[in-house]
Amino acid sequence: MTRHTSAVTGMLALVGVTLFGQGRAQPPQVGVPAQPGTAQAPGQRGGGRGGPQGPQIVSPQVNAERTVTLRLYAPKATQVNVTGEILNGAAPAAMTKGEDGVWTATLPAVPPDVYLYAFNIDGVNTPDPRNPWVKLVSGTGLASQVEVPGDGPQYYDSKPVPHGLVQIMTYESKATGATRQAWVYTPPDYNRTTTKYPVLYLLHGGGDLDPGWVMTGRAPIIMDNLLAEKKARPMLVVMPLARGGGSLGLGPNGMSPGIAAAGNVAPPAGRGAGAPAPGAAAGVAPPAPAGPAPLQAFAQDFIGDLMPAVERTFRASTRAEDRAMGGLSAGGAATVNTTFSRPDLFGYIIIMSAGAGQAGQNVEASYPKFFGNNASAARQMKLIWIAAGDEDFALNGAKALDEALTKNAVKHVFKTTPGRHEWRLWRPHLYEFAQLLFQPQPRSTESDAGKARSR
Amino acid sequence: MTRHTSAVTGMLALVGVTLFGQGRAQPPQVGVPAQPGTAQAPGQRGGGRGGPQGPQIVSPQVNAERTVTLRLYAPKATQVNVTGEILNGAAPAAMTKGEDGVWTATLPAVPPDVYLYAFNIDGVNTPDPRNPWVKLVSGTGLASQVEVPGDGPQYYDSKPVPHGLVQIMTYESKATGATRQAWVYTPPDYNRTTTKYPVLYLLHGGGDLDPGWVMTGRAPIIMDNLLAEKKARPMLVVMPLARGGGSLGLGPNGMSPGIAAAGNVAPPAGRGAGAPAPGAAAGVAPPAPAGPAPLQAFAQDFIGDLMPAVERTFRASTRAEDRAMGGLSAGGAATVNTTFSRPDLFGYIIIMSAGAGQAGQNVEASYPKFFGNNASAARQMKLIWIAAGDEDFALNGAKALDEALTKNAVKHVFKTTPGRHEWRLWRPHLYEFAQLLFQPQPRSTESDAGKARSR
Repeated sequence: MTRHTSAVTGMLALVGVTLFGQGRAQPPQVGVPAQPGTAQAPGQRGGGRGGPQGPQIVSPQVNAERTVTLRLYAPKATQVNVTGEILNGAAPAAMTKGEDGVWTATLPAVPPDVYLYAFNIDGVNTPDPRNPWVKLVSGTGLASQVEVPGDGPQYYDSKPVPHGLVQIMTYESKATGATRQAWVYTPPDYNRTTTKYPVLYLLHGGGDLDPGWVMTGRAPIIMDNLLAEKKARPMLVVMPLARGGGSLGLGPNGMSPGIAAAGNVAPPAGRGAGAPAPGAAAGVAPPAPAGPAPLQAFAQDFIGDLMPAVERTFRASTRAEDRAMGGLSAGGAATVNTTFSRPDLFGYIIIMSAGAGQAGQNVEASYPKFFGNNASAARQMKLIWIAAGDEDFALNGAKALDEALTKNAVKHVFKTTPGRHEWRLWRPHLYEFAQLLFQPQPRSTESDAGKARSR
Repeated sequence: MTRHTSAVTGMLALVGVTLFGQGRAQPPQVGVPAQPGTAQAPGQRGGGRGGPQGPQIVSPQVNAERTVTLRLYAPKATQVNVTGEILNGAAPAAMTKGEDGVWTATLPAVPPDVYLYAFNIDGVNTPDPRNPWVKLVSGTGLASQVEVPGDGPQYYDSKPVPHGLVQIMTYESKATGATRQAWVYTPPDYNRTTTKYPVLYLLHGGGDLDPGWVMTGRAPIIMDNLLAEKKARPMLVVMPLARGGGSLGLGPNGMSPGIAAAGNVAPPAGRGAGAPAPGAAAGVAPPAPAGPAPLQAFAQDFIGDLMPAVERTFRASTRAEDRAMGGLSAGGAATVNTTFSRPDLFGYIIIMSAGAGQAGQNVEASYPKFFGNNASAARQMKLIWIAAGDEDFALNGAKALDEALTKNAVKHVFKTTPGRHEWRLWRPHLYEFAQLLFQPQPRSTESDAGKARSR
């Protein structure tokens, strides 16, 4: 009995630390290094981590005056810079090394918002090892996220209002030969009604993945808040994987032939199998295919696989005037290509920080179903809403699209809002255009989010 | 018109690269560095990344013989090691530096499975910057994930069978003072029936967050596959945040007072506000509270907030014999504490890689409602299922719990399975015990997953 009791007690201490030590929430004192292989750090034996962890430090730390202090333990590094949105447009900030091997930087105050940041350690980009809130990306580099709070909850902060659900739908994509996922917001009243809902298809950009509009864009929170204030109509928001590849974490069948062919993973028997690409074994990837084929594969998935799966799974209206499609950056280009190619399917088009997609030399000639017969399909759209940031590298492309529509006398909204090519721009865009969708009359486009935002 | 057309064309090239370059899927040739600030790398201006990216390399690369090659560009580093599950129990593997600054290691062949790994660069742990598939953790260090495929889809791989949905439910937690989330699997037939379903509450461990059982544990895929083979009964699987803090990405109201008090973030006005903790400004966290209070806060959230929210939102049976609670590691300890304290609420108890929770000196004395009156509540449980790995550091704690139950003549299953304290252990556990839940008769505990797994 003595042995039994002490074994139980030993386990208690161990799991207590594991569950409730909560690294970030209550880290031990600085200067007390974790001991790998002891009960203090059991996760190190199995969690993909290893080596000395260094002192337990707090990072990020948001200070009351809206400055942000970042810390990184890197005793052998010779230069560490902070990069990302948290700089608010300034040049990379050099961190200062302390005698304990901890690099520190306190950045200038920024307006309330959610920011991305990362460290560059002697040329290696890495997210903040102490920050669990990472942005999932499609290969352009992981980044950490930090929120600088405002005075009370902002339009993108969760409030104690009725919450919708985010439903992750898995479907087989014939067009891409992969299993894929879409994240679908259903409004709070969805499970209390039997009606069909209008649908917004909302695409992320090239650096993101299917969770992007939920985990970084906060679309469900923004919609919850709009609906609680009766500023928007209840709608489904479908956030698919807006690229050619497969979703992550579904196994080999979640990988598109393109990903498998790049040599990252030897394909298994069955679907998706194919000969390894030349050069893959040496870590050299095959050249990217030229031309519009990948975008066409996406549009084929979207129209042939995704939309039918959504309409099978959810109570989604199938009327064109109850469908909106929008996207940012590369997702905006995919939106142009999809909606301009099949204007019969959509009533609303939203283009954020993007131009005319893969239109080739002439956007009008590329989309005859949209611009042909005096742009009859374009003129029947309920709303074409185009926006870009005033410091957005996509601004010129958006302006060119604006001009093409103006030249064809197609009614549309084109606006620039303060900001760069960042999520800080697109969250307020959603807040604004969501109020215009599926309404009998276009409403004012002036938004609280836009008004509240300062730089 | 010329200016307009060329601007559109320029935008095309840019967004084409953004969306379809797909870094990991089709990276450019080795030796062609990305140019920050050009159209080749637009994300660098706004995506939280910056500084030179180095050559575009493929990592991870899974080879046909089930070896894994990892690569990292770190020209100034003096030592880089690979850590994590991918080593399959071996010591950290040193990588070799090439003249181009790219470190490379090809690891020994491993059995088909999903593995975590990370790099230790001169003492700094970092996930693989080239791998978008990262594991979200609660502060113990980010890790990358890689799947080594088997011959055809495994029990944890998505197959073209009917798929359930994963529904992310947001709720207000009075017990923790925070907005929190639970990920809820609903089986494929859920939207075609009107019946109430039995519920498995499934908790992650101390190093994970609420997406853990979905993004790393693959519970929805495992359940889809079991249901397609009619090996399990349709059930809801509720995967909550199994710790005291708030969920990520919900804004300041998603932070528990504990997280706010640690000084990471200055709380906003309103809920969750409080005085900054002493020492927070210097990056020194306050000492962790001692005693069982945090676990009680979790149990209070679980019983007082989470379960009612689930039963309000979903068609969940409220009968004890239709409720199971299970968890791994720290989540197993929380399961012990919750179910042993309130045995009236549950019919099934699953403990993976954990002991007797915060039972104090004597597990029997700590839970009188469970062990009192000759362990009458314990003996009424439909199933108590305890498992740990044969190289699991939690094995002794699990054995002690086994002994306490045996001493009280409480019928239960206790088994060891090959493996360490890793997700490689717990995925087959789920595959096995899910077949035993909510069945008229306990079924065989021998699983295909267990049989198929070799080490």
